[in-house]
Order: sequence, then structure tokens, then C-alpha cells
Amino acid sequence: MFNSFGEIFRFTTFGESHGRAIGVVVDGVPAGIEFDEEFLKNELARRKPGKNRFSTQRKEDDLPEVLSGIFEGKTTGTPIGVVIFNKDQKSKDYSNIKDIFRPGHADFTYFHKYSIRDYRGGGRSSARETAARVVAGAIAKMILKELNIEIEAGVIEIGGVRAKNEDFEYAKKSEIFALDKEKEKEWIELIDKAREEHNSLGGVVKLRIKNLPIGLGEPIYYKLDNVLASAIMSINAVKGIYIGNPNAHKLTGVENNDEISKNGFLSNNAGGVLGGISNGENIEIEVYFKPTPSIFKPQKSIDINGNEVEVNLKGRHDPIVAIRGSVVVESMAACVIADMLMLNMTRTIENIKKIYQ
Amino acid sequence: MFNSFGEIFRFTTFGESHGRAIGVVVDGVPAGIEFDEEFLKNELARRKPGKNRFSTQRKEDDLPEVLSGIFEGKTTGTPIGVVIFNKDQKSKDYSNIKDIFRPGHADFTYFHKYSIRDYRGGGRSSARETAARVVAGAIAKMILKELNIEIEAGVIEIGGVRAKNEDFEYAKKSEIFALDKEKEKEWIELIDKAREEHNSLGGVVKLRIKNLPIGLGEPIYYKLDNVLASAIMSINAVKGIYIGNPNAHKLTGVENNDEISKNGFLSNNAGGVLGGISNGENIEIEVYFKPTPSIFKPQKSIDINGNEVEVNLKGRHDPIVAIRGSVVVESMAACVIADMLMLNMTRTIENIKKIYQ
Amino acid sequence: MFNSFGEIFRFTTFGESHGRAIGVVVDGVPAGIEFDEEFLKNELARRKPGKNRFSTQRKEDDLPEVLSGIFEGKTTGTPIGVVIFNKDQKSKDYSNIKDIFRPGHADFTYFHKYSIRDYRGGGRSSARETAARVVAGAIAKMILKELNIEIEAGVIEIGGVRAKNEDFEYAKKSEIFALDKEKEKEWIELIDKAREEHNSLGGVVKLRIKNLPIGLGEPIYYKLDNVLASAIMSINAVKGIYIGNPNAHKLTGVENNDEISKNGFLSNNAGGVLGGISNGENIEIEVYFKPTPSIFKPQKSIDINGNEVEVNLKGRHDPIVAIRGSVVVESMAACVIADMLMLNMTRTIENIKKIYQ
Amino acid sequence: MFNSFGEIFRFTTFGESHGRAIGVVVDGVPAGIEFDEEFLKNELARRKPGKNRFSTQRKEDDLPEVLSGIFEGKTTGTPIGVVIFNKDQKSKDYSNIKDIFRPGHADFTYFHKYSIRDYRGGGRSSARETAARVVAGAIAKMILKELNIEIEAGVIEIGGVRAKNEDFEYAKKSEIFALDKEKEKEWIELIDKAREEHNSLGGVVKLRIKNLPIGLGEPIYYKLDNVLASAIMSINAVKGIYIGNPNAHKLTGVENNDEISKNGFLSNNAGGVLGGISNGENIEIEVYFKPTPSIFKPQKSIDINGNEVEVNLKGRHDPIVAIRGSVVVESMAACVIADMLMLNMTRTIENIKKIYQ
Repeated sequence: MFNSFGEIFRFTTFGESHGRAIGVVVDGVPAGIEFDEEFLKNELARRKPGKNRFSTQRKEDDLPEVLSGIFEGKTTGTPIGVVIFNKDQKSKDYSNIKDIFRPGHADFTYFHKYSIRDYRGGGRSSARETAARVVAGAIAKMILKELNIEIEAGVIEIGGVRAKNEDFEYAKKSEIFALDKEKEKEWIELIDKAREEHNSLGGVVKLRIKNLPIGLGEPIYYKLDNVLASAIMSINAVKGIYIGNPNAHKLTGVENNDEISKNGFLSNNAGGVLGGISNGENIEIEVYFKPTPSIFKPQKSIDINGNEVEVNLKGRHDPIVAIRGSVVVESMAACVIADMLMLNMTRTIENIKKIYQ
Repeated sequence: MFNSFGEIFRFTTFGESHGRAIGVVVDGVPAGIEFDEEFLKNELARRKPGKNRFSTQRKEDDLPEVLSGIFEGKTTGTPIGVVIFNKDQKSKDYSNIKDIFRPGHADFTYFHKYSIRDYRGGGRSSARETAARVVAGAIAKMILKELNIEIEAGVIEIGGVRAKNEDFEYAKKSEIFALDKEKEKEWIELIDKAREEHNSLGGVVKLRIKNLPIGLGEPIYYKLDNVLASAIMSINAVKGIYIGNPNAHKLTGVENNDEISKNGFLSNNAGGVLGGISNGENIEIEVYFKPTPSIFKPQKSIDINGNEVEVNLKGRHDPIVAIRGSVVVESMAACVIADMLMLNMTRTIENIKKIYQ
Repeated sequence: MFNSFGEIFRFTTFGESHGRAIGVVVDGVPAGIEFDEEFLKNELARRKPGKNRFSTQRKEDDLPEVLSGIFEGKTTGTPIGVVIFNKDQKSKDYSNIKDIFRPGHADFTYFHKYSIRDYRGGGRSSARETAARVVAGAIAKMILKELNIEIEAGVIEIGGVRAKNEDFEYAKKSEIFALDKEKEKEWIELIDKAREEHNSLGGVVKLRIKNLPIGLGEPIYYKLDNVLASAIMSINAVKGIYIGNPNAHKLTGVENNDEISKNGFLSNNAGGVLGGISNGENIEIEVYFKPTPSIFKPQKSIDINGNEVEVNLKGRHDPIVAIRGSVVVESMAACVIADMLMLNMTRTIENIKKIYQ
Repeated sequence: MFNSFGEIFRFTTFGESHGRAIGVVVDGVPAGIEFDEEFLKNELARRKPGKNRFSTQRKEDDLPEVLSGIFEGKTTGTPIGVVIFNKDQKSKDYSNIKDIFRPGHADFTYFHKYSIRDYRGGGRSSARETAARVVAGAIAKMILKELNIEIEAGVIEIGGVRAKNEDFEYAKKSEIFALDKEKEKEWIELIDKAREEHNSLGGVVKLRIKNLPIGLGEPIYYKLDNVLASAIMSINAVKGIYIGNPNAHKLTGVENNDEISKNGFLSNNAGGVLGGISNGENIEIEVYFKPTPSIFKPQKSIDINGNEVEVNLKGRHDPIVAIRGSVVVESMAACVIADMLMLNMTRTIENIKKIYQ
């Protein structure tokens, strides 16, 4: 609860945007997995702000220090503690936002909930926290790799402009993780325009999981889909999620049901989940991101004493969080799948006997 | 996990569609609440299939037997066990579906996960289970009533036809929980047509929560929004969810940010949640239901031995689950809010002192 | 939490002593296990009060009704709901204890905690609740039987008189689950004397678990020993527990360390647990029960208004709870072991591959 | 689970004895508490090995670095991450124990459970981990201080020699946390003798909690006593626990029941807990520690290939862990009480209304 996610594969994050460090403890990792620290760093680099002009922000070096849980290059079954010290922790002047609530941010709610608030860069509510999730996700992916399960995500819509194609291989090379090469240029122009106008854009991320075994997901309240929803909806700026064909609610039963042949399902409107359990098809999910709340135009707000003020933010921010967010979506999904793999293996006496006899 | 939901207010359901009974244990209910058994029965009646021609199905009497946790009309703080015996448990002939996987149903995945499956009426995966959720939700609503928190839901879209108005008062009187009186007739015609054609329809439910205190929701992984998402996405046939303005991903930051005045927020694109914490505005959520998978046309499928077969279902089923589903959405939301109320009160030392000093 | 125990194998109990029913929902049971209803009834019979003169009390028929989770004689992986209706629910007159706090009972603390109290027969705090644990334990034992793991318990001390021998086979036949045939007569005399004097006796139960695989227990906070301690210390009237040689704290390291040979450990002071993990030796645990608090002599107490009163209880009660308690100790231990078996199987990538490849 | 403890006040530890660092994330801390870093350091100093000749071992500087959760000297409600880097991490030669299982240690079980083992200084199973618990306990004590709840512990028995008095004030000044000034000298002589003989001693710690409100503890499975048992039994080398009068199992009901007057209970055999709920009296608990398994005499064992070997350990070790262990007992108890305080405040509608109205 609070700052942890998962049942068996369970991680806990801590740290504020401009505090001393952020970090994560990943518990429940099985022993005997090759720990690929380069891969971990690459995953963090993929999420890193300032990587390109489309998601410029402060420089985060994001050097993860692995403090425990690894011995002679392998996981030992003990918790993996990872810390990333905040290099960008300089004594910036926050006097302009110290006592006001930025629209679209969590300033207002944190203050009212806790009566105290670390206002530096959003504190705990900053997207900075998602770096810790990416660490957990990278470790989860190391487990999934052993079973050839693949998790991939890319951008399918920006500023209301929708992709026509879905090319996950292309997204891997794209600067903006674009799933559609043909829309990429238009999207980049939209982003540039938003930045120039001190505005920001929403977007949609598509997630796909391949090679998942049949049977993952624990009905009724730890289904594959509702837990993925919980994981992904916890990401900053995510407001909606849809599993499978995002028009399912407009379809009839005849159109929407996926018929079955001896070679598998004849369609995948279900997005790979039936009754909360994976059916062997690809998991397909759309994730809806709101536009970045940090914009650089005057906005009406109030201060902590209830006085009306005009908010004028300065600085550099991501004009669109969906791009970097796609890496976080992958990470959260990887953590869920790792958890579900371990839970599911305990669900039949045949499996139990395979281990103990 | 598995068949439980919630942290403090935590319920556990059990029972199969055509087993002996379904039931629920509601734990974590505070002591001292008037237990309104009539209200509980009314809530079950609202969900009941066969209530009208728009959701005909078998007769469920749904008489809840309260087995524990109440003394002299009040909750005692001990778990409330409630059982509903299945009256409709007659030895129907299931030989036609015993060995086949109905498209759109969980037959395929349950069989592969567990190697055994109670095929009678869908067994555990049947929407019958949601009656147990409504019991939990009714108890949660008894708590919320003490704080004047209101939870209401209705249908905002059927078969692709969208409401123009949102009138929650009207929905309470509407046979199909229609939020828009002017669309009601058209929707009823669509449903009738689908039934005649042995087909089914998807739909969209809108949920609204009023009078919620500021501060509910526990960042980072037990946020108000991601837990509501988990709760609601666990409902049968729900494929998507959106919190706040369902076009947020198409908007710019200037359009989407909710500015603040001394009288509150000037808009509510956020749907009442900022940083995972309630901001005092109404919670507004859209829920996307797929069409009922039970249709009465021939469909391609396979049997448990992998042979291709044609599935021909017979009987009466709801042509649209979204209508009854709206009651379940309310129930799940009520449970989440009850849980969040109790968690949040522990989050400051000022609150703790209010209790112990 | 509250009324649930376990992580994977997790059960939830409900019900008051003189309410309508008590019951349990057992979640996380693997699919495919033969459900032995006769065994379940036998386990309840072993715990049943009134079975013999040594634990006379009211008649409980204790007929368990299995409501879900079983299909064609096997577990299906869905939750098993079991209810036992209270036959002995007659409108007894409780006016003598309604407003007073019986010494040694939970009357005082329940009243102060909840401001309301079901005073009929102790309500939720009655040992009646342990029948629900025995149901869960019986199901756990059905799992353990598949792996030949044996759980057995008996009485090793009554009224300060200690056994000289430990014969678990004899205990199974003994009316008072005596581990020492030679002490049995003396113990029975002590019990008879206590009953005649309207007094009660404490006792010690010894638990032994055989054929446990090496590796069960999840360090650091879900160790085999601390979870067994939690499970067993939650039983009514248990005040202490000791794992392994109960004199370990008086020994030196030279005396206490169990040396190892190629055929196993040369002694078992550790009681089968090292670092919280089973080491392949028998688990051995002593459990310390206080005397039954229900005695039939005048006692000083206060009423709910703080007035001093003399308490004079009437009726028939167990003069010693340790005897029946030994069945509950077994049950709780069985549940813990079932849980640990499933958790442990997820702890290496080798095991995961055994299932998914 | 695994490496976390608690429900609301919940901490997670990580780190191996000779890894890069150990640490803890403390979640669920209420906002608004003065963070006393000096007190935190003092608590670690009390536990520190090498503090005196009675618990010499390696030098641990144990400088805690607080990475998050504190702002302007107060807790913010976000998780508090604390890391202690291992200064003593030098490349010591472990070749003598690398492949063998030290008797009384967890070497054997960790290796069989995980198939891999960090053998350096016991790795994760080392008592080094308890420093992280003391950090969590110190934070819990900061909460308890706000309500004047006091937690104190001392040594009541060493090497079979029992105290006659219990003076918790004296224990605070005593080099060996002796509860009995008159036994202190004898105990020190026993310890010196054990060290000279390369042997070790067991002992008993007594814990006392004062000024606890009535009502803490959540029946039936999260009782105050069974959760304290779980917390304390998870500490390295603890083999038993007893709540209240440790002879309760030898007493009769007449002797053991605590009668009640208008001024409170007339005795405290119950140790402050009835029905799993605090009754306002002092909580009193005895904790039984086995002797340190590290002894410096030849012992029989096997290596990882099953060959019989003679183990000859060298170095400096605590001849008795109970002394330092008493600080860890206090810490775990403090964490449990902090958790229980927050859970209990949610248990009546009156309390909920106090917060929200």
C-alpha cells in the first residue's frame, strides 16, 4: 500500500524530486537471475528527460547504485535496494511557488492532506519518482527475458492526431517512440509548436505484451486487467486506460466476441484477457495521458492562505509526458507480469508437485 | 488478493453461479453504524436481473442472510458475513457447453489455468458474483451516508449513441438508469432490436461522487484514481475507464488545467483527483463495458480437446450488461471510498492526537 | 489483516458465538485437490466441546456446509466458503453478564475498543471462532497430505505436571490428547478436581511437523518461525510459544548448536528452523495456554458504568482449553505450511522455468 | 511480506552484512512529526556492537543517511528512506567459510532455498540487518513520544541466572542493560568466562510498554499479542516469547484471572492484553534468545557438496546476543504499537466523525 506495489514481486519507492535521493527496494525477486546492470542503465536512459529536444528538462544523471541483493552477478532472492542520488539538488529559488498551488499539479491536495508540503519541484508528486519505477521494471524485465516474454510500448496519438500504423520496431528507434513513422513528423511539429507557445500536449501510449503464457491473472480482484489498470493508472498524468479494442463499448456481441479456432483466437478484441486471465494472445492496452500541467502562461490560482494569485511558472519542462511515460508504462506492466507469473504457478496441485516431488 | 479487495475496509467474496450459495465477508467495518437491512435489499434489487425486460434473465430472489457482525441493529466492528443461497440451482442440462469454450467468456482461460472448471453458468466467472459486491457496496454506503458522501451512476452511452445531458436524478427513476431522458427511448429501441437479433450491446456508465472530503487517496500506489480503476476494472465486461474529462489526452495544458479561485476550482477536467488525492470537486469517471458475450447466434470455437465446433447458445440473457453494471460500479466505488476515508485519517499526527488525547 | 490470515493460502473467518452462524472463506487453495468432506467433519469432531467429560460444554453439532469452491469432488482454485450454523442459539438469559466485565475475558477490552459489544457467550471473542480455523486447517491438511507432510499435536503438560515421554501416536487415541500415557491418569484427576472446585487449569501443547521440505520460510519478516508464532499466538488463551528446545536460552553455544553430518543434523535444538527457514528436521514447538478464564467462583469486577460488582458465573465450561486447543494449534500450523509451500516455490528462477517451460 | 513488516506503519529493509549498504524504507509515517535525527543516532549507538567488551565485534560506524520523507525538520507523510553504508566492507578472506555450513547459522538453509548464498559474514541472515530495524523503531518511537507511550527493555536472565528485581531505570544506565543491579556482576563474569572459553550464552529480555491506550489490537488475526509475537520472533536468535506472567500455564483460573476494581486491574498476569486488545495495563513480555551460534571451537558440519568437515571459526563475536537484542526488541515493539495506534483509530464511526466533521 502507499508506496509499494505488487504481491510477490513487490517494490517500494521513496524520495522527493529535489531531496537527497530517490530509490527503490525490489522484493520478491527470484534467486538465480543474471543481473544486467547495463540494461538497467539503458532503461533509465530511455526514460531520461533531456535526452532530446522533445523532452528537455533538467539534467538527471540517473546513476543507479545497486546496494544489495546481488552476489557474483546474480540475484540471491534477497531484496534489491537501488538508490539514485539527486545531482540536480542545487539550492534553486522556489520562493515563487512555495506558497501557491500550481493548477494541474498536486500542490493543492498534498498541502490539504498532510498540512505540510515539500514544494521543491513537486516533491514526492513529481514525475521524478518514476525513475524508481523504471529500476523495478528493468529488474522485472530480466525475469521476463528468461521466459521470452516481451513488453513494448510506443506513442499512438499526440495532440489528437492518431497513428494509422502500429510499428513497435520503429518506435524503438524513434526519438519520440512513435509507433507510426508517417505521423512522426507531424507529431514533432505539434510538440515544437506547443513548446514555443509555452503550452503542452496530451497523448496516447499503446502497450503490447507478447509471448505471455495462458493463465496469468488471479480472479476476482487480482485479475490481469484490473491490476494492470491499477499499475498504469498510478503513473503521473495517466487519466484513462482501455484493454483490447478501444471501441468495444460501441460494438455488438457478434462483432466483439473473438471466435476460436484450433490455431488460436480469430481476432483479439479482448486484448489478450478473458475473465481476468491471459488467453495466450498479445496483451494490448491503450493509455491516455493528460497534457503536462507545467505550462508557462499566466494562470489563476490561490495561495496557501486562500488569496487569489496569478501563477507564472518559468523554466524548462516536457511539453508532453506521454513519450517518456511510455517507458514507465512498460516498467509497470513488467512488474505486474513478473508478479502474476509467480502467483499463477502456485494455483494447481500439479504445479506444486512439480516443485516438491 | 485473489478474492478480496481493500486494505482497511476489505471484503472477500465466494461462490459460483450455480453452486449452493454466493457470499461475502466484509471486514474492517467501523463499529456503531446503523445497519439498514432494507437498504441492503434495495441495492440488491437495483442490480437484480429480470427486473425488467431490459435485463431479463433467470429469477434471482437474492435474499441476503446476514450471519454476523450486527448486534442490536448496529455494526460491532467484527466481520459481517452475508450469504445468498442460489435458488435457481436446478439440475439444468449443461451438456451443450460442458466441454466447449464459449467465445467472449472465461471458459477457455479458467480451464487452462486450473485444469478444472465449474461449467455451470460460468461458475465463478459469472456476473452472479457481482451480487456479493453489491452487498459490500451497500455496507460501504451506510458508512458514507454518515458523512453525507453520495455515490451515483447511470448510463451515458448505449450502442454507440451518446447522451447529450447528464441527469443523475432522472437516472434513479429510469428503468435503464438512463442519464439522458431524451435518449432513453432510442436506447430502449436499440436494446429491443439487439435482443430480437440475438445480439448484444456495449455501453458506457458514468459515475459521480459528491461531497468527498479533500485528501482521500494514498500516493504513490494507492492513489484514489488507480485504486478506483482497479476496483472498477475488476467488474465483469469492463474494458476501460477514464477519470475526469475523457478528452484530456486531446487537450493542451492551457485547456486542461483547472484554474483555482477562492471559491474552488473553475473547472473539473481532473475529475476531482490531483496527484491521486481528492481535491474536493466531484469525482467523475466513465466506465466502458463491452457487449454481453452471451449471444444466440452460431459461433466458431473449440472444445476442451482442441476440436473445432460450432457454439449455439440458448436461453435468456441480458443484451446489455452496462445497465445492471452501473450498480456494481457504484458499489465498488463506495467500497474504495470507505477504505480511503479510514486510511486518510491516520496520515497526520494532528489527527492521531484528536483521537487519543 | 483483522479477520484474515496468510498471504497465498489465506482464510477469513466471521461469526459470533451466539449469532446466526460462524464461517470461513479459504482463498488461495490450489485447484485439483480431492476434497475430503469426511475428513473435514472428523477434524471438527476432534475439536468439538462436549466430546467427553474433559471438555464438556454446550452441544455443538458443527455441521459444516460447503458453499463453494468444490466441483465434482475437487477444488477448483476458487474460494471455498464454509458456514456452520449455530444450533445452540437459543434465547438464553444473558442479563447477568450483559453489563459486567468477566475477569480474564475480553469483555472489558471489546467494550472499550468498539463502544458496543455482543455479550452473548463472548460474541466474537469466544473460542467458538476456532471451529472456523479448524475448517481452514482441514483444507490445508488436504494439501499437505499430497506431499506427505504430517502435522500432529498433543498435550505435554497440565496444571504444572510435565510429561516424561512424547508419544504422538498415543495422543491420537487419548481422550485428552495426552502425549504421555503414564501421566494421563494424573492429568485426568487434576482436571476432575479443577472442575469440582469450579476452577480451571493451564497447560502446554507440543506441535510436531514431519516431512517438511527444506527451504520453507521467507526471510526476514515472513520467516517460518515468526509466522507460526503469529498464527499460534492468535489462538484464544495462548500466552507463549517456544520453537525447538525450550531451554535454549539457558544453554551455551556449544550445547545448543546442532552439528551436521552427511546424514543430517546430529541434534534438533533448533526445532527444525534456521534463519527462519526449514532445515529438513522436524518442526517442534511448545505452546503455552493459560487456564480457562471462565470459573465459577465469585470474582471482583466492574460493570460498564464503572461500579464495582461481584461476578458469579454459572454453567458448564471447559476446565482446560489446552486439550481442544491442540487441534487448533495443528490447524493454524497447517495453514501456515500450506502458505509457505506456495510462496517458496516462486523463489528461484529454476522453479519458475520448471512450470513455464 | 518477505522483507516488510506492518500494515499502516510499514517498513521494508534491505542489505547484506558485507554488501555495499543496508537500509530501510519506513512508509505510513504520519505527517507533522518532529524528526529527531540525534535520537535516531542514539538508538543506533545503543544497538552498536563493539560498544563495550560485552558485545565486541567489528566497528560499525552506523551513520544513517536520511534520504527522503523529511522537510524542514518534519515528516511529510512520504516514505522515509534511510541508508547505512557498510564501512567494514573490506575484502576479508572468506575462503574458510565460503563452502561450508556453520552450525547454528542460516548458511545451510539459505543455500538450499536459493541455490546461491552471499557467504560474506552471513549475508542477509546476519544480525547486521537489525540496524535497519532500529532505524524504523526510532521513527516509531518519535510517534509514540507524541502520546507519551514508553517502550523499554532490559536483560532479565543470562546463562540461566535469573534476576530477582526488575529495574528498568537501572537497565538504561547498565552496560549490559541489566534489569537487576544485584545480578549484574555475576552476569558480567558469566559473559567474560564464555568469551574466554570461546563459547556463548543465551539470555532472556523483558519488554515493558507503558501508557498504552486501551483498545489497541485488531482481533482475530492482527491482535496486539500475536503481532508482537510475529515482530519479535522475527529477530535473529529469538526462539520463544511469553506475554504476561510466564507461569500462566501452570496456574489455575482463580490464580491467573486479573480481577478488576474501579481503579483498574488488581493484578497483571495478562500482561496488558485481553482478547488481543490492550487493557490499559503495562504490556509485559519475555523474550528468549538462544546463545550466539558463532563459537570458536571445532564443530562438525558438511560442505556444500555434502562432505563432512570440521568448522573452525575465527574472529570476534558477541558472546551473547540478548543484550544488543533488547534494543531490537524495543524497536520492533515500537513499530507494532505505531501501526496499531493508527489501525485502531479507524474502528468506530465516532472516531471517523471526529476527523471529518
